[in-house]
Parts: sequence; C-alpha cells; structure tokens
Amino acid sequence: MKRSFIREILEAIDEKTISFAGGLPNEKLFPMEELKIATLKVIENPKTYQYTISNGIDELREQIALRYTKEGFATTKENILITTGSQQAMYILAKFFENKNITIEEPSYLGAMNIFRLNGLKMEGVKLENDGVDINKFEESFKNTKLTYLIPDFQNPSATTYSDTKREEVANIIKKYDGILIEDSPYSELFFDKKMPYISKSLTNNSFLLGSFSKTLVPSLRIGWIRANEDKIKSLMIIKESIDLHSCGLSQYILSEYLKDEQKYENHLQKIRDDYKEKAEFFSKSLKSIIPEFIHQTPKGGMFLYGGFKNKIDTFALVQECLKKKVVYVPGNQFYIDKVPNSEIRFNYTHSSFEQIEKGLKIIKSCL
Amino acid sequence: MKRSFIREILEAIDEKTISFAGGLPNEKLFPMEELKIATLKVIENPKTYQYTISNGIDELREQIALRYTKEGFATTKENILITTGSQQAMYILAKFFENKNITIEEPSYLGAMNIFRLNGLKMEGVKLENDGVDINKFEESFKNTKLTYLIPDFQNPSATTYSDTKREEVANIIKKYDGILIEDSPYSELFFDKKMPYISKSLTNNSFLLGSFSKTLVPSLRIGWIRANEDKIKSLMIIKESIDLHSCGLSQYILSEYLKDEQKYENHLQKIRDDYKEKAEFFSKSLKSIIPEFIHQTPKGGMFLYGGFKNKIDTFALVQECLKKKVVYVPGNQFYIDKVPNSEIRFNYTHSSFEQIEKGLKIIKSCL
Repeated sequence: MKRSFIREILEAIDEKTISFAGGLPNEKLFPMEELKIATLKVIENPKTYQYTISNGIDELREQIALRYTKEGFATTKENILITTGSQQAMYILAKFFENKNITIEEPSYLGAMNIFRLNGLKMEGVKLENDGVDINKFEESFKNTKLTYLIPDFQNPSATTYSDTKREEVANIIKKYDGILIEDSPYSELFFDKKMPYISKSLTNNSFLLGSFSKTLVPSLRIGWIRANEDKIKSLMIIKESIDLHSCGLSQYILSEYLKDEQKYENHLQKIRDDYKEKAEFFSKSLKSIIPEFIHQTPKGGMFLYGGFKNKIDTFALVQECLKKKVVYVPGNQFYIDKVPNSEIRFNYTHSSFEQIEKGLKIIKSCL
Repeated sequence: MKRSFIREILEAIDEKTISFAGGLPNEKLFPMEELKIATLKVIENPKTYQYTISNGIDELREQIALRYTKEGFATTKENILITTGSQQAMYILAKFFENKNITIEEPSYLGAMNIFRLNGLKMEGVKLENDGVDINKFEESFKNTKLTYLIPDFQNPSATTYSDTKREEVANIIKKYDGILIEDSPYSELFFDKKMPYISKSLTNNSFLLGSFSKTLVPSLRIGWIRANEDKIKSLMIIKESIDLHSCGLSQYILSEYLKDEQKYENHLQKIRDDYKEKAEFFSKSLKSIIPEFIHQTPKGGMFLYGGFKNKIDTFALVQECLKKKVVYVPGNQFYIDKVPNSEIRFNYTHSSFEQIEKGLKIIKSCL
C-alpha cells in the first residue's frame, strides 16, 4: 500500500512552489469574518466542547436536509450522517462494502481508489466520455458488481459532468439490477451555469449521496456528510462511531451557526462560482496560448481542468522535472487503476493567482 | 455487529437523566476563557481553515513530543501522529493489525473491543488483578498473540493502576517475545497522588502509546495522538489519510496556541485532579452509606469507580429499571468479551454534581 501521491506532494512542497496539485480552495475566498462571528457565538456555550452524538448535531443535520428538500429531494435529519470530511464518508462506505467488487469511472478520484484498495474492494473501471460513463460498458460491469462509485458533477479529475440522458440511463441500470450507487458530489454547488439534479434523487433506497463543506466553505473544519435512507444511515453509524466517536463538535456548531442565515451562504457560493469561473477561463486561455499542444475543454464548474498532450508524453516523469523548478500538478496516470504512465494532466486552477498560473505554465512548457 | 451500549444510551437520555454512564468530563472545568483567547488568535489566519498535512501540524506535534521528553521519554515530532480523538488512534491500529489475535485485559474498554471486532481481531482476555494483569496468564496468551492492548493508568472501566513491578514484568514479557504493546493512556494525567511511568518507555521499538486531550481539556475538538517510532508512524499514515485526510485543523491550531503557555496547562490539570479527587471520594463515601452492599475501592485517579455487588445481581437488567427512573450507569458485562450479565457496575463520577450523585445512588438503591 503506497501513500497518496497528492498527500506526499503536499508535504514535500514549500511556500515557493506553484501548486496546481491538490484540491485546495482559494483561501482568499474563505468567509473569515462571518466564521468569526459564528465562532464567537458558539464558544460561549460549554456544550460546544462536550462529547456529542455520533450521527452529528441535530441542527446541522436539519440544515443540510432542508437544502436537499428545497431542491425537491425530500430529506430529513434522519437521512443525514455527519462525517469528518467526505473522505471519511467514503471510508465508512468502503468499510461497509469491504471486499466487494465496485464499478468506477476511469479516470477517478485518487483518494477514493486508495480507500477502496485499503478495504479490499476490487475496482472495475469504465471509461468516462464527455457526457458521463460509456453506458454499455457501465451496464456490463454493473450487472455483476451491483455497486458503483460515481462523481457526476464536475468530476475529479476530469471535470466531466453527466448529461440528463446519462443520469437517467445510469439510474435505470441501477434500478434494473437493484444495486447501489455511491454518488460523490463535493463540487455540485460549484457550477458556473446551472445545477444538475442528483442521480440519487430517483434512487432513494439504492443510493448514498456524499456532500462536503470543504470546497464550498473551508476544508480544515473537516465536515462532510452522507445522505441515505434511515436504515442505511443506522447501519453506517456502527462504523462511524468506531472510527472517531463523532466529528469535531466545535466545527459542527460553527457551521450550523453560520448556516442560519441561508442568504449569506448563497451569496458566498455565488462569489466562489464567479471567482472560479474567471480562474477556469483564464487557466484555459493561458494553456491554449502557452502550451497549445495540451488538448482540453474549458471547465463548467468545480476545481479542475483536465486534458492530455497530442503526442505521447509521460506526464509522471515530467512532473518530477517540474518539481525541481517549483511547479507541481497531478499526472493523469494517478487516476487510473493500473497507474500506467500516460499523457494526461489534472490541473487545479482555484488556488493560484493569475500571475502564478502564467508563470507555472511557462515553467511546465520549458520542461517539455 | 451491535452499536456501543454507551453511545446508544447517550442518545436515549434527556437532560433530566442523571448519567453515571459515558466518560464525560465535567464541563464546568472546561477552560472556556483561555480557549477563547487561543481561538480568537488563530482564526485571524486563513491557514487555520486550509487543508493541512495528514500527520498533524508541526507545532502541536512538537509540543506533545516535548511533554514526553521532559518526563524522560525522548520524543520528537516525527514520533507523533495526530488523530481524531484517541478513538481514531485505536481504529488506525486495529486496521493496521486487522484479523490478528490480541491479548486484552478483562474487563476492558468497550470502545476498543468494538473496534477490534469490527476489524476482525480475535481477543483473548486476561483477568485484571488489583495491581495489573494476572502475569502468568498474560504470558501464556501473549506468547501466541504477540500483540496486546493495555490501559495501565486508572483503567477504563476498573480504575486499576499497574504497580511498578507489574509494569516491569509486562515489559519484559513483550521484549522476550519481541511483540507489540498498544498502551492506551487517556487518564495518565488525571492522577490524584503521583504519575506512573509509561510502560512504552522501555519498549521504544515495540510500542504504540496513545494520548488524548479529550479528558484533560475538552472532548469535542477530537484531538488525540499516537506516539511510536518513526517507521511505525509512517506506516500508520497511509491509514490515517485514508480515513479523514487530517484531523480538524481549527482544533489543532487552537490547542497548539493554548499549549504555548505550559504553566497554564499545568495549572488547569491540577484543578481537574483536585476536583475529580473530591468527586471520587464523595462518590465512594456516598456509595458506602447508600448502597453498602456494593464493594469497591476508592479511585486514585481517572474518571471511573468500579465494583460489584456481594450478591448475584444482574446489573444489565437493573439498568433498564434505573433508566425508567432517569438514572443510568454502565453494567459490568459490557466490558467483557462474552458480555454475560454479572454483578459489576462502572460509575463515572466526574460529570455529576454532589446532589446528583446522592440522588442517583438513592434511586439505584430503590431499584434493587
């Protein structure tokens, strides 16, 4: 078992390194002042510091449930399990389904793949197309595994978003074989144009929907969640409480206090969307002018830009060279089950300044 | 797999219930004002809210290491892995040693036993005597398992503390068979008379030592740690980062800021020790006068008082009656591998007021 390439890099890079790796949100957009107001309020109450229940504090679960309900996906607090980031949500599910076979997208989220490996899940990859998984290959795999892990919105790493048709087709296949969908949606709120409907919405008894505040508010509070039917949530609680009893109470109270003003959160989300959209377009334009041989689509949401070189270039070897010159990205092979070097790259565009983006891309170009 | 009895009870009880269950520290002793000062300082820095490294922030690991070094147990930050409470420390180790055999004390910590079960460890129980495990039985088991989980200071649930002789004998057996000790020490700092030396100190390459701020400061920040040699820490990091990437960053920065003034922490610890000692003595005295048939020793540290009835009384059946009258404790059978009902009870004495202690014990007496 090897450590995550991204986590290792995060530990190796210094402050002078331009990082297009990681999934770091832009800390200039953290709502510092509003979090401070919420924090000052909750730390007056000793309850904030005491042990709390494993599934998460009632208020926060209610607030999360309400957001789904308002989008037409009826949800109560009994459908929500608070987790220590959506990373832990994934771990809990991997432990729940340990040693099973699972259908995943290729490329897919590195962190999830590591968790699946650690818990003995056997992954079968299905190629991602521009509008979602290759649906025939998906059915071929799913009819055997009956379990799938998908990231339908602004996928990590590929930035792919499923079309309405693909969402429906995937849901129908899952129903047909009475299987299970794990729908990971950390980026759903970070759309530049419009929000797509959750696939889980038409699969209430056959789905686990994962969410997180790490990308929309701040990551260090480590608060994510799982939405599922009540029976499923109860089964997962045994694992949750074994892992850490409960997620940080202080974080939960701060977020719940912050979320009391819904409009404030909506305004904040819009601010991030606007900023990330500008960054995405700038990154894409800079790439086209500085490294025109790198083929990609301009992202429509999320935090990543993905693409590949026309010619055969080993981007895993290339990143070692770039690292010496203080620029880093994640090579595409990291997102495949077999990790065979390829010509693809995932760039994070949210964390760097415009200057750093241009400078970083020029350095990469010089390493080619 | 059943949920933890204690966690289920925590969810069932209301504010009117007198709870001698749980391991709740007394929230009246939380250093609210000092945590507030630390919090106000760290939340001005955006870094506090950003992703951080998996092993934990440098400053906090250095501070924890320094405390061990000052006690004569040479430790650097490379020996420390920050975890989401010591519950997660335990989970990480259980995952690391999954499916192995393990020697544990009987009775032992319920949470650890659940974690071991969840990760396929096969537990062998060795009876606890007044000064530590029955040493012959311990060797008999350990020579096969080569792995043991012990709580040598103010054990949960029994309040037992190992004598110097037993500590030495246990260390010698572990060395003899070149096995591994998991030393859980959440209560070490909560001594009423003197601090005992860690067994791990003489087993630097064969031990994992677990610590926590949940019992000495506040539980909800969910910060604990594992102390081990550097190679072992590196191996555990793969599991740690899979589980939740890293523990709450805000919590880590707050604690690190708080710990900068060592004397302040020492004073706080002394305050808790004085308060808990008074509570322990009051609880013991009240028990002797209200339920004289309950045989026990007055605790010398920690958070629990343990004992049993002279006559055969099913304390698991009894607690259901007490719960109706709004009093709760943890029946002794919960702390045994086979969970066969017995006459023993664990009382937490730290969380209730003097009035509640007397009232609660009288209600229990009335249920007998």
